[in-house]
Amino acid sequence: MKRQETIKAYAPATVSNLGSGFDIIGFPIRDAGDTVLLRKSDTPGMRIAGITGYTGVPWLPEKNTATFALMKFFERLEVDYALEVEIHKGVKPGSGVGSSASSSAAALVAANKWMGSPMSKMQLVELAAESEAMASGSSHADNVAPAILGGITIIRSYEPLDVIRIDPPAELWTVLLHPQIEVRTETSRKMLPESVPFKDAVCQWGNVAGLISGFYRSDYELIGRSMQDVIVEPVRSRLIPGYYELKETALQEGALNCSISGSGPSVMALCKGEEKAHAVCKAMEASYETTQVPFQTYVSPVNPQGAYIVDDDPGMGAAGQ
Amino acid sequence: MKRQETIKAYAPATVSNLGSGFDIIGFPIRDAGDTVLLRKSDTPGMRIAGITGYTGVPWLPEKNTATFALMKFFERLEVDYALEVEIHKGVKPGSGVGSSASSSAAALVAANKWMGSPMSKMQLVELAAESEAMASGSSHADNVAPAILGGITIIRSYEPLDVIRIDPPAELWTVLLHPQIEVRTETSRKMLPESVPFKDAVCQWGNVAGLISGFYRSDYELIGRSMQDVIVEPVRSRLIPGYYELKETALQEGALNCSISGSGPSVMALCKGEEKAHAVCKAMEASYETTQVPFQTYVSPVNPQGAYIVDDDPGMGAAGQ
Repeated sequence: MKRQETIKAYAPATVSNLGSGFDIIGFPIRDAGDTVLLRKSDTPGMRIAGITGYTGVPWLPEKNTATFALMKFFERLEVDYALEVEIHKGVKPGSGVGSSASSSAAALVAANKWMGSPMSKMQLVELAAESEAMASGSSHADNVAPAILGGITIIRSYEPLDVIRIDPPAELWTVLLHPQIEVRTETSRKMLPESVPFKDAVCQWGNVAGLISGFYRSDYELIGRSMQDVIVEPVRSRLIPGYYELKETALQEGALNCSISGSGPSVMALCKGEEKAHAVCKAMEASYETTQVPFQTYVSPVNPQGAYIVDDDPGMGAAGQ
Repeated sequence: MKRQETIKAYAPATVSNLGSGFDIIGFPIRDAGDTVLLRKSDTPGMRIAGITGYTGVPWLPEKNTATFALMKFFERLEVDYALEVEIHKGVKPGSGVGSSASSSAAALVAANKWMGSPMSKMQLVELAAESEAMASGSSHADNVAPAILGGITIIRSYEPLDVIRIDPPAELWTVLLHPQIEVRTETSRKMLPESVPFKDAVCQWGNVAGLISGFYRSDYELIGRSMQDVIVEPVRSRLIPGYYELKETALQEGALNCSISGSGPSVMALCKGEEKAHAVCKAMEASYETTQVPFQTYVSPVNPQGAYIVDDDPGMGAAGQ
């Protein structure tokens, strides 16, 4: 088989945790993501030929989640490679919306298509989770799964990896407010308690059960009240200046609930409907301006679609969007 | 309004926990339960006029879950009462299938109907949970909710009480093996750890998410593998002689999974379909005979129906079934 010269894929940024669903639930947003282009090279091995958009991610192929995932992919297939990789980062690293996952998801979806789809999406999720382990020191799949599969994903189990995908309720929207401070996943994970009171654990899985029920029933109120997180939010919120005021504002404006996106510092609110989401966003912006911390906001539906091939014409140019 | 002389209601026995769903998930079985009859009396107050079937429950109205629930019910309505109560216990106390809950559920459903249904089913669940607190020292609703509502119930939250009911998958059956040893809920609760490792808690709520998903999708395999319980089973199984051999037998025979029902000692297996349930039951019986512990077994569909009025003809006789 003669393969085309280049291939390019896009993978969305993702919101994970949703309060009670710590480490197991995630979904993609719509208008922010990373793009990865693969180009045939004459030199065996892998080289990062360009990183555009948000920078600050490693150029060393063994350290970059996109190229690390690619190496694992070709190793698994026992195929030699000679590749140049261009990465366009539309997702800022350390923002809490799965920047590393977007890169590895896009890279894997591109490579898999290039090779004639030898792997299932679930196998790609597994490889991408290995990439997360390299980058953050712990294998987690709650960003890579939604980045690849789209929709709301549940990580039921890590060993073996068992992922469930749920179609998102049609009117489920999210607001993200990203304070421009960096919180490294690694640092944020070290804050987690080693153990939790038994009764808090029961309370948390009661809420998880409610949250999953809410998704299946499109019961927006239930989704909102089930996001309650008695374990992680009290600890991690300390990393985010003005967190509880922001949350209070979102709730007052009619958000279903509000929590920390991933390991932060982005704050996410869920809303019923686009109009409400924009109103909540506006209120959150007004509230957060008082903190003097610069920030960005996004409003997006919970995206049923995961990573996809952008343009697989042979002869396509660079990876920029 | 002139009320009839007697009223009688039946409430099914219930299976709770289902492994990972400790303290939050339950469902009724079909052919075992308690019946409670209320009869007008000339003497103000409440008196237990008879307890038939399994005995060993308190005759003192303040200590019996049926009459305690009734007293709370009439107090809440601010109505005086003059009642005789007959209780037929089809569920053996201390067996792990919600014996106390069946009594209070039947009593409340009878009384509510008698009074012209002033309370919602959810309010009855709340009252019945208070009765559980009186009986076992901790307010739990994972037996009373399914006994009253039927189907699979989730206790999302205790404060405030928030209960979700799910229609059971059509082919979901359970096998119960009840070793004839008594395990008191109170004793069994004292064995629970005060805290759990964080990673075990995450593992547990991942499984809870899978279990709830399995119910909504009627995905039997998913239900089975999501029952995995890394927190409670290792501790409580010690109270049940031959537990792991029994579980192994059930799994080998094709049960979806097997766990402890409520606080034990009953062991419950879930199966897809009636035929498989009977086969699993037979294998479990053969296996358990080697322990020399006497036992009973039940095979039942997961029952979509909760408590109901048995016969509200005026002039009906005693409460025996």
